[in-house]
Amino acid sequence: MSYQPVTSTVLTALRDIVGERGVLADAERIEAYGHDETSTDEYGHLPEVVVLPTTSEQVAQVVKLANRARIPITPRGAGSGLSGGAIPVFGGILLSLEKLNRLLELDLDTMTVTVEAGMVTNDLAHLVQEQGLFFAGYPMSVETCYIGGNIAHNAGGGKAIKYGVTGRYILGLELVTPTGDTLWLGGKLAKDVSGYDLKQLVIGSEGTLGIVTKAIIKLLAYPTTASDLLVLFETPRAAIDVVPIIMRHGITPTGIEFMDRLSIETSCNYLNETLPYHKAGAMLLIEIDGNHPDQVEADLIAIGDLCEAHGAIEVYVAEDRNTIERIWAVRRNIAEAFKVYSPTQSLEDIVVPINRIPDIIPELERLSHRYDMRIPCYGHAGDGNLHATLVKHPDTDNRTWLRNKDACLRDLYRIVHGYGGKISGEHGIGLKRKAYLPAVTNPVEIELMRAIKRAWDPNNIMNPGKIFDLEPVPA
Amino acid sequence: MSYQPVTSTVLTALRDIVGERGVLADAERIEAYGHDETSTDEYGHLPEVVVLPTTSEQVAQVVKLANRARIPITPRGAGSGLSGGAIPVFGGILLSLEKLNRLLELDLDTMTVTVEAGMVTNDLAHLVQEQGLFFAGYPMSVETCYIGGNIAHNAGGGKAIKYGVTGRYILGLELVTPTGDTLWLGGKLAKDVSGYDLKQLVIGSEGTLGIVTKAIIKLLAYPTTASDLLVLFETPRAAIDVVPIIMRHGITPTGIEFMDRLSIETSCNYLNETLPYHKAGAMLLIEIDGNHPDQVEADLIAIGDLCEAHGAIEVYVAEDRNTIERIWAVRRNIAEAFKVYSPTQSLEDIVVPINRIPDIIPELERLSHRYDMRIPCYGHAGDGNLHATLVKHPDTDNRTWLRNKDACLRDLYRIVHGYGGKISGEHGIGLKRKAYLPAVTNPVEIELMRAIKRAWDPNNIMNPGKIFDLEPVPA
Repeated sequence: MSYQPVTSTVLTALRDIVGERGVLADAERIEAYGHDETSTDEYGHLPEVVVLPTTSEQVAQVVKLANRARIPITPRGAGSGLSGGAIPVFGGILLSLEKLNRLLELDLDTMTVTVEAGMVTNDLAHLVQEQGLFFAGYPMSVETCYIGGNIAHNAGGGKAIKYGVTGRYILGLELVTPTGDTLWLGGKLAKDVSGYDLKQLVIGSEGTLGIVTKAIIKLLAYPTTASDLLVLFETPRAAIDVVPIIMRHGITPTGIEFMDRLSIETSCNYLNETLPYHKAGAMLLIEIDGNHPDQVEADLIAIGDLCEAHGAIEVYVAEDRNTIERIWAVRRNIAEAFKVYSPTQSLEDIVVPINRIPDIIPELERLSHRYDMRIPCYGHAGDGNLHATLVKHPDTDNRTWLRNKDACLRDLYRIVHGYGGKISGEHGIGLKRKAYLPAVTNPVEIELMRAIKRAWDPNNIMNPGKIFDLEPVPA
Repeated sequence: MSYQPVTSTVLTALRDIVGERGVLADAERIEAYGHDETSTDEYGHLPEVVVLPTTSEQVAQVVKLANRARIPITPRGAGSGLSGGAIPVFGGILLSLEKLNRLLELDLDTMTVTVEAGMVTNDLAHLVQEQGLFFAGYPMSVETCYIGGNIAHNAGGGKAIKYGVTGRYILGLELVTPTGDTLWLGGKLAKDVSGYDLKQLVIGSEGTLGIVTKAIIKLLAYPTTASDLLVLFETPRAAIDVVPIIMRHGITPTGIEFMDRLSIETSCNYLNETLPYHKAGAMLLIEIDGNHPDQVEADLIAIGDLCEAHGAIEVYVAEDRNTIERIWAVRRNIAEAFKVYSPTQSLEDIVVPINRIPDIIPELERLSHRYDMRIPCYGHAGDGNLHATLVKHPDTDNRTWLRNKDACLRDLYRIVHGYGGKISGEHGIGLKRKAYLPAVTNPVEIELMRAIKRAWDPNNIMNPGKIFDLEPVPA
């Protein structure tokens, strides 16, 4: 790898671009930029310098400099990523978008908002809600994650079954290319086939094809009503089988969350939750929203009836707000509950055709026995996206855990691939899954990705070492 | 351009792949493959040979042959395109998908259907409707167009405001690359960030990045109720201003069709339609669908009230089915009506932010005077996609018309660009608009497109001469 180091000359040039206070070089201040939400021990790596631009123009100048000087540059949002996508594996320049967090325009006529990439998702959500508007791209990390990060990973979340993922709402974006050019892709347009859809290519490319600095986001009317339904089933299959029955009935819930027995029990014990969930082999949390209370009510009842007609043990309806709150607490606390059991985990993000979920659950059980770990499974059943989580047995030593985790992931990904699934639905490949992608991906597909990367980033300086490795560029 | 001709050796090789009856070489039979729905005089060009493969494997073999022999290959669907995308401008091989028209799987559990690219859209729609399911990608040419053509152009149509465009429903596709490799992109998955979204890149690339041979399509529950509303306004601005008011109210119509005065009058005269539409400076045709009759009814009334509260002259509600039928006849017959006036036209496909539509209308009037032609404007107001149509004055000679049309389009596209719009919303750039794209597109964006094309199609044999021109590939 022929990257150049960040010399004092480079530091001076960076200070000329973003100013003294925009350049962090001392060990103490850069430490926080060397990891994301993945294990620091396993994936952490410090940058040589952290740069905090305040405008797109500064971003472009920094990228031009990095490209000229052959210095790797890693864009970073909130650092809430779960695949190591923002970790500067080759050192070099860490470019944080944290100071590009302005709302640029709220356009009620086109129902769009234009923001900088460093805006926190929830800040955006609240700003538009004041106007009765709704940003439907809604990842679980909404309190911390940035819009730019959502775009980089085409973030999903619990509402994707009804509203789709982030990309559906990104009408336009400002991109700084790996060679430092700045351009807008898309616009305030509902349709556009004026050439290739480069915007959609950039969305989900994890910052390897350039740095998104601004976005035009489509808004919806804020749903005035929302309600929940909790349904207990004896088996995962019984729970999952009811999902397409609901959809074919013409009802599209906002979300259908799934929890297996292990997830439920662990979280219930953690919360001293006394509701009789231990009876359930699996549980669905179904949300409905809309702008017509009667409608939402009717759909909710229809879903309850369908569930009861198809093997549900118990149905709790939203009337009992307190019950629902207790349920959501169970859902929200699964990860925490398992951290108490063992802090060492690998949060996975597999996605399969929804009718394959019941086939995955027993496979996870087999894997947990074979590799001596717990693997609770919960997630977004409505779109087949499951956060199976490998949890280290407290007595297992670290070396064994790492070896077992690696072997277990290879098996799991092979199984998922066999069912027509993919290894990441919303977290991305990044650094964490890069080594596993080739085993479950057509080599032609990876080569087509590499070809685009080479063509757009001839010096391979833009977030290198993510998604796939690139052979050294032919001189 | 260093393409090789289709020699008798090549013909023999093609016959070995697809069989005698799959190769058409005689002038009479290939004539029909030399044009699409654009003007044959202006854009038509004959292929040297037409190939009719019956399987993806045959498609791949033909592409491998073309790539080895440096023969341009042009994929073709139904030939209902409006941008010349399927015209073999360099001769060579015309590959028609007409025999790849099988339904491969209807999967009720995942609510997906897998079809070959040559299936007619309406055939698919009817097949799934028998199961109570709905294909929401619905272009106006639905009776003739193929699924493959819809994918190539990311087709929109009248329902995009509620259901989005074709790409939203394409979960997976089988692609034969320009070098003849075959691979599946995507799958029966609602989410997938396992590498770049190559599927979405291929969608809308007009067959320049490979040939789509199969697709996995997401289905919805068939909407059991639908109703219409016709609203007359004094001015286009009054009509358009009401659109975001409806949307912000939390109602998303299936479609909002717009017609200007010239469109209405011409069509009304053509039909001897006596309803008092001549009073209207503009007209909205608003559709609602859903699975709850009361709901649809309530929305319809709410929209009617909103329109009346915001300057509508008259509101016709769906109760009067006969009235609505007469209205739809007016909408459907605009193009026909103008053909009676003059058969020589250029059907445009501009798309602008919806609040800019009222600014476009007077510009079109100015252009029609400056260039001595009529320019009726109608289309999908809900998503800003307007089919402004340049219509030749019967007395204008052809040379003058071509010169004026060219100048008029340059002006129109510049104006659209100035309003943040694009020159094609759903028809594509193809051959017809290729010369105009650079004037309204950032050169960096076109170069990024070219870079992908070069990287995927090193010999530039896959539908060359479409969207943009490519310099000869460096040897």
